[in-house]
Amino acid sequence: MTDDVIENRSPSDLRTVISVDAMGGDRGAEAVVGGMALSAEINPEIRFIVHGDSARLEELIGKRAILSERCEIRHADSAIAMDEKPSHAMRNGKGSSMWGAIDSVRDGEATVAVSCGNTGALMAISMVRLRRAPGVNRPAIAILWPSDNPQNYNVMLDVGADIKADAPDLLKFALMGASYARNGLGVAIPRVGLLNVGTEEHKGRAELKEAHEMIAASSSQNDIVFVGFVEGGDIPSDRVDVIVTDGFTGNVALKTAEGTAKAIGRQLRAAFKRTLMSRLGALFAYSSMRQLREKIDPRRANGGVFLGLNGTVIKSHGSADATGVSAAIKLAFTLAQLGFADKIAARVASAVPHGDDVANAVRSENGE
Amino acid sequence: MTDDVIENRSPSDLRTVISVDAMGGDRGAEAVVGGMALSAEINPEIRFIVHGDSARLEELIGKRAILSERCEIRHADSAIAMDEKPSHAMRNGKGSSMWGAIDSVRDGEATVAVSCGNTGALMAISMVRLRRAPGVNRPAIAILWPSDNPQNYNVMLDVGADIKADAPDLLKFALMGASYARNGLGVAIPRVGLLNVGTEEHKGRAELKEAHEMIAASSSQNDIVFVGFVEGGDIPSDRVDVIVTDGFTGNVALKTAEGTAKAIGRQLRAAFKRTLMSRLGALFAYSSMRQLREKIDPRRANGGVFLGLNGTVIKSHGSADATGVSAAIKLAFTLAQLGFADKIAARVASAVPHGDDVANAVRSENGE
Repeated sequence: MTDDVIENRSPSDLRTVISVDAMGGDRGAEAVVGGMALSAEINPEIRFIVHGDSARLEELIGKRAILSERCEIRHADSAIAMDEKPSHAMRNGKGSSMWGAIDSVRDGEATVAVSCGNTGALMAISMVRLRRAPGVNRPAIAILWPSDNPQNYNVMLDVGADIKADAPDLLKFALMGASYARNGLGVAIPRVGLLNVGTEEHKGRAELKEAHEMIAASSSQNDIVFVGFVEGGDIPSDRVDVIVTDGFTGNVALKTAEGTAKAIGRQLRAAFKRTLMSRLGALFAYSSMRQLREKIDPRRANGGVFLGLNGTVIKSHGSADATGVSAAIKLAFTLAQLGFADKIAARVASAVPHGDDVANAVRSENGE
Repeated sequence: MTDDVIENRSPSDLRTVISVDAMGGDRGAEAVVGGMALSAEINPEIRFIVHGDSARLEELIGKRAILSERCEIRHADSAIAMDEKPSHAMRNGKGSSMWGAIDSVRDGEATVAVSCGNTGALMAISMVRLRRAPGVNRPAIAILWPSDNPQNYNVMLDVGADIKADAPDLLKFALMGASYARNGLGVAIPRVGLLNVGTEEHKGRAELKEAHEMIAASSSQNDIVFVGFVEGGDIPSDRVDVIVTDGFTGNVALKTAEGTAKAIGRQLRAAFKRTLMSRLGALFAYSSMRQLREKIDPRRANGGVFLGLNGTVIKSHGSADATGVSAAIKLAFTLAQLGFADKIAARVASAVPHGDDVANAVRSENGE
């Protein structure tokens, strides 16, 4: 719990340091520190810079031997409320645990920041403190969506960084999402699909048709395969590895899928309880059902990654418990080890002039 | 199979006549006629005007005794292809089975038309032949979404009539959806929610904030309770009876939910097969699982209702089998019996001047 834990570090050591906002989230610091402890147990290398109320954090961390000598506590006087407006947080958030967690990445003390707090505020403060990567107009939040693919997940973005995206934004989402699939999931040549209300090329909004042309034109130079338009039903499929959409549509799709899964879960539990026979059935199938529940447990794929900034920020679900927080930290550690932020910046920066050329070419072809 | 089946009919008799496009859909006339036969078995009053290739239809209907003397066949020279552009179908669709099915409603021979065909073409031809109801700018497609409510379903619209909707459109969707919930589901005072990416009033697109004010201002006069913004996870919940959104978002949400349910179904089957114990469990729980499958079977809530036209048109899923088609026909019959088209037209027409007043009042309040 002293500074020497992370001083005199080499760049490769730095890749083991995660900056944590301990005050965000619905369950408070208890769940966050619990998640850190779970991560520390399975990962002897990991170190934390923890931002929040120091008295509370010293108490919580002091109770967990596994965390001793792995955490540096940075006191923050305030915490961003879950219902605080992003614009207010951006103007008045200095001194908060969230602001501090992001500044640790900005200042090069940690590679990735993790917060369970208010998504809008986290994005707003991240934009101000880390700034957008060269060539990126709109950052995006990418998540891992359980899928039928060998890698078990597809990448879906944007799920809520912004409420809209134009065609050049969607092209960059495609490149950033592909980079995430390549680095985070090990898919060498990701297949990218653009979410629409039909797969025919004449369907959908104008910006989607334009984005379709732009992504198609740039796919071969960017080591992606563009599968064209995909529909909501394709998101968990093995037709595609990366699904690109604007943040409004992506957020509705994500929450609809979560709501559907929960509703089916409730129905399934009720069905198992319905008769004596089905109760017996539940007993026999218990181990397989538990394995299934773990496989599709949203807590285990917890963590929206903010892409398009000079640094990596991971938003954990606001209601995450220790298991959920630990999944977000595990993701943070993986991306930190890979030097993900540098890789994605290089990828987007190298693609940008090309991307803009394509945009201009497409626009001039269309006589605009 | 002769004209006298439906001639000399009174208005109440007419409410038993359903116009059917037998040539639409992925499975062809066989599935459609199969669905008609299933409906005829459970409903002795129902009569059909069937549009399609007369030779094929005579053969298919002739094989089913239950349909004899209940069907009038109307020959159509052509059928609209599933991938035909709506604009092309609208210009060249005359003489097709779809066009004929809609014209039977237009001409007052049948109360409701049912088609499994191309959604875009069906909407385009319906707009041209039936025209929009007074006060409606954009029609909408409403579906029944399985929910935790006592009525087992919520109404969701628009799921794909158009790719956008402005604030006055969303207000009318709220009124039309509430009318559907009242008539189709028996909910006296429907609770209406507006789909957004958060429940806070400052969130979302400009047209959603405007629609929020308009629906709130008109709710008490229209026998609805406006619950404000809802999120994707609320669609199957008991917080709300009617969910209002634009056709792009609604279509993505619907297909995402269907895809999620299918993916969970696949995982569940795999889990039951995994071990000898779980196979035994599946055997014991078989009856309860079958009941659950039937309850959430999308075929049983098959049928998107086109709202906002001078007449009712029901779009059955393109891949519907006989069970699915029969569900769509059952819905058509229920709405025909209720005189739904007249009720909804009266509701929207009476609300329109008011709705426009509200829109104008809100706009002038906002200094526009």
